[in-house]
Amino acid sequence: MLESLKMNTFYTRSQEAGLHIMHIALNKQATSQIILLVGKSMTQKSLYRTLVRVQDLTAEKADQLIWLRARVHTSRAKGKQCFLVLRQQQFNVQALVAVGDRASKQMVKFAANITKESIVDVEAAVRKVEQKIESCSQQDVELHIERVSIFVISQAEARLPLQLEDAVRPDGDGEEEGRATVNQDTKLDNRVIDLRTTTSQAIFRLQSGVCQLFRDTLTQKGFVEIQTPKIISAASEGGANVFTVSYFKTSAYLAQSPQLYKQMCICADFDKVFCVGPVFRAEDSNTHRHLTEFVGLDIEMAFNYHYHEVIDSITDTMVQIFKGLRDNFQTEIQTVNKQFPSEPFKFLEPTLRLEYTEAVAMLHEAGVEMGDEDDLSTPNEKLLGRLVKEKYDTDFYVLDKYPLAVRPFYTMPDPNNPKYSNSYDMFMRGEEILSGAQRIHDAQLLTDRATHHQIDLEKIKAYIDSFRYGAPPHGGGGIGLERVCMLYLGLHNVRQTSMFPRDPKRLTP
Amino acid sequence: MLESLKMNTFYTRSQEAGLHIMHIALNKQATSQIILLVGKSMTQKSLYRTLVRVQDLTAEKADQLIWLRARVHTSRAKGKQCFLVLRQQQFNVQALVAVGDRASKQMVKFAANITKESIVDVEAAVRKVEQKIESCSQQDVELHIERVSIFVISQAEARLPLQLEDAVRPDGDGEEEGRATVNQDTKLDNRVIDLRTTTSQAIFRLQSGVCQLFRDTLTQKGFVEIQTPKIISAASEGGANVFTVSYFKTSAYLAQSPQLYKQMCICADFDKVFCVGPVFRAEDSNTHRHLTEFVGLDIEMAFNYHYHEVIDSITDTMVQIFKGLRDNFQTEIQTVNKQFPSEPFKFLEPTLRLEYTEAVAMLHEAGVEMGDEDDLSTPNEKLLGRLVKEKYDTDFYVLDKYPLAVRPFYTMPDPNNPKYSNSYDMFMRGEEILSGAQRIHDAQLLTDRATHHQIDLEKIKAYIDSFRYGAPPHGGGGIGLERVCMLYLGLHNVRQTSMFPRDPKRLTP
Repeated sequence: MLESLKMNTFYTRSQEAGLHIMHIALNKQATSQIILLVGKSMTQKSLYRTLVRVQDLTAEKADQLIWLRARVHTSRAKGKQCFLVLRQQQFNVQALVAVGDRASKQMVKFAANITKESIVDVEAAVRKVEQKIESCSQQDVELHIERVSIFVISQAEARLPLQLEDAVRPDGDGEEEGRATVNQDTKLDNRVIDLRTTTSQAIFRLQSGVCQLFRDTLTQKGFVEIQTPKIISAASEGGANVFTVSYFKTSAYLAQSPQLYKQMCICADFDKVFCVGPVFRAEDSNTHRHLTEFVGLDIEMAFNYHYHEVIDSITDTMVQIFKGLRDNFQTEIQTVNKQFPSEPFKFLEPTLRLEYTEAVAMLHEAGVEMGDEDDLSTPNEKLLGRLVKEKYDTDFYVLDKYPLAVRPFYTMPDPNNPKYSNSYDMFMRGEEILSGAQRIHDAQLLTDRATHHQIDLEKIKAYIDSFRYGAPPHGGGGIGLERVCMLYLGLHNVRQTSMFPRDPKRLTP
Repeated sequence: MLESLKMNTFYTRSQEAGLHIMHIALNKQATSQIILLVGKSMTQKSLYRTLVRVQDLTAEKADQLIWLRARVHTSRAKGKQCFLVLRQQQFNVQALVAVGDRASKQMVKFAANITKESIVDVEAAVRKVEQKIESCSQQDVELHIERVSIFVISQAEARLPLQLEDAVRPDGDGEEEGRATVNQDTKLDNRVIDLRTTTSQAIFRLQSGVCQLFRDTLTQKGFVEIQTPKIISAASEGGANVFTVSYFKTSAYLAQSPQLYKQMCICADFDKVFCVGPVFRAEDSNTHRHLTEFVGLDIEMAFNYHYHEVIDSITDTMVQIFKGLRDNFQTEIQTVNKQFPSEPFKFLEPTLRLEYTEAVAMLHEAGVEMGDEDDLSTPNEKLLGRLVKEKYDTDFYVLDKYPLAVRPFYTMPDPNNPKYSNSYDMFMRGEEILSGAQRIHDAQLLTDRATHHQIDLEKIKAYIDSFRYGAPPHGGGGIGLERVCMLYLGLHNVRQTSMFPRDPKRLTP
């Protein structure tokens, strides 16, 4: 079935491993070696080679003979030599095949013909170099492939849909020399290759870190992780922007947030809960910050005396995330900055909390015309972010006490001023990353507010009933994971921080 | 709006907290006290009371005066006394209000009238008891509510849809005395109350632990957490059992597993990945172990020489989970055992691995008639589990090398025997909890196998194309979270370990 691969290769399968091995047959030495690999002895694990990691190739390993599995990042033949750059994730190392005692001219030629992005096993000697190799992550050594030892584990097609070096080039860089950059749709259409770039590897390792920091911080605070259903029977917030699912002989919806279920868990005595999971919004918004499916980091907790206890828990969690990223993900941050330069993310301790009326006053002062109880437009949010940064030197703050009219029906009104509410948004670099509030925990008040919002009470019966059998005062919020990563790194499109983004126009890959 | 609550109560709102406080007006002392609570001074956090946790009420706290917020679990008036049991999650303590110097007859009467499941704040003295209180988790002390200090924070409706003590009663227990148990549908219909039982609290705290142990173990092994899309453009495995979503002007599907995306991440050099998220199956199966939406704990990893490296990683992860549960969740396990007795879960190190042919031979020996390459029926799986337990004394094992014909198209065939495959299931107490395999990483072989399975190649183009640009040998598996929890605890219905289960007949709450 692999007949199509023509390059003096022969194809074998290891007898035990089910591992497909294509071998570039260079000479008899190589052939005898491959037999070792595919024979029955394969089951004896002691015969397995130890593969080193590229990141471990330092001067300390000089003059050792090692085995390595890596991708061919680039290859450049130059007379009797072939320079390969071998890559593992964000790390790479230079390797040299040169005509001499140990390698034939033919071998150099074959090495040069291995397609980029193929995965190879090589046996090589680690050699110190006199001049640092600036173009590689491993600058102090290179590999000398002296024995006839290159095996192609998986061969890439010759024509790549995009070049990795183009995909990581900063916008405008090298334009004069006619060097290409790759547009976003091409990247996303070929995401499997685009995700191999140092930038993508760094972004998604950092994203994994955000989730871990979020959970670890909350677990330490005594929160319990919950799993909430995504298929729900009724569109909770009036039915707008919700995806419909055909469910056997009836219809169902995809949850726009886990909020109602988080609240039920509070009514069910779990006291403090969090969940991490997909959130679905059937919004036909084609902007840099909207996705139809994103990952929600959700929090809900009972509080004792004041909903600011909830704000404090959430802001402290965010601060722990920011600190964890700053302290443990510097390499990733700097890798992303190379392609997308941005200022380091700034935050205060304790977190700045402004009231909505203060924010409106700041905007008025800056010449913005808006009513006291109008919602903030996206440009005004951005402007406010700049004003706050100038005045307080922080990229993260809380805006508290939103006008009641612009918030969902389940938001607790401010007891002091019925035009406002006990609700808040949180912002990073002037963009909203969290929306939250104290929730109404009294079934009758909830019924009144839902009626005021003209919501069909029959559809939210199960939700309202949850509060009939004793419910503690509580609040929470939902954080958009992709937005947090985008804004922390100073990126400009949420599709960069979603592995396989979904928007009104994109459903693949 | 709370006019309906008639019991000599008055209703106030705290000025700052938005916290609804209903106060049982007993006498003037109480009235003066509530004013403190609702006045402007509320913003001064120093005035907030410190609330103790029920679990901290031990003999060491004897004779201290404390404040507590808890639910009224039961209340029993007896002449001039009222005994309350106050509950926080799985912990509870007895509290006594007695007519005397500090409490009036009226107060005792009011305390006795507080509806079960209401949330109250009480001020009380902690008193050592001479005889242990067997019916409470806090056996060495009781609370004496001596001052006029009971505030109802949230009042439950008088008629509960189910009684917590009925919901935790073991089947058959107390039947002779006419004591009720609660059937599963009633529990699930009123899940918010059912989740308050000690059994439910224990189950879902343990479930939270499973997720944490799964992630922590894999993170330590160098795995990266990924987030995969749930809305997908094509039903990957032939289109059966898939939910359809209307997606703007087109149709989409809900992912039946993250497997294709996990694999793409391997092709994208993430090397070892895991994810935790919802999985959707439009199967009209009304059994004890099927849900239409469940939580998948998914693993995928590149390996070096043999797919057993993958099996070893997964079984070690499971063993770490079993050990973590055994060592850190004994209270939860014993709590669940009180209602649902079961044998402790047994496992071996290293994990037992049987080949499919061995299993078939064991079944043949036990009198089962089946072909060598037939799939295992559910009863045969259960029987095999019993045979394995008898012979090897383990509740957890791996069944390796399934017949190729019964596995999905992307399963790597066994290179030694084309009738078998490099695939495996894992079992707990005789039920499948994981299905996995080495995956085909060669685009041509994948195309051949898809064609053999009569799958429309056009629909899986993005998937197959992922392997065209170099892909390492890899494998993985998907674990059902609810099944792991059910089987570890020896429960008999997966709905018990899903907070808000979804099946063909249940979409609410």
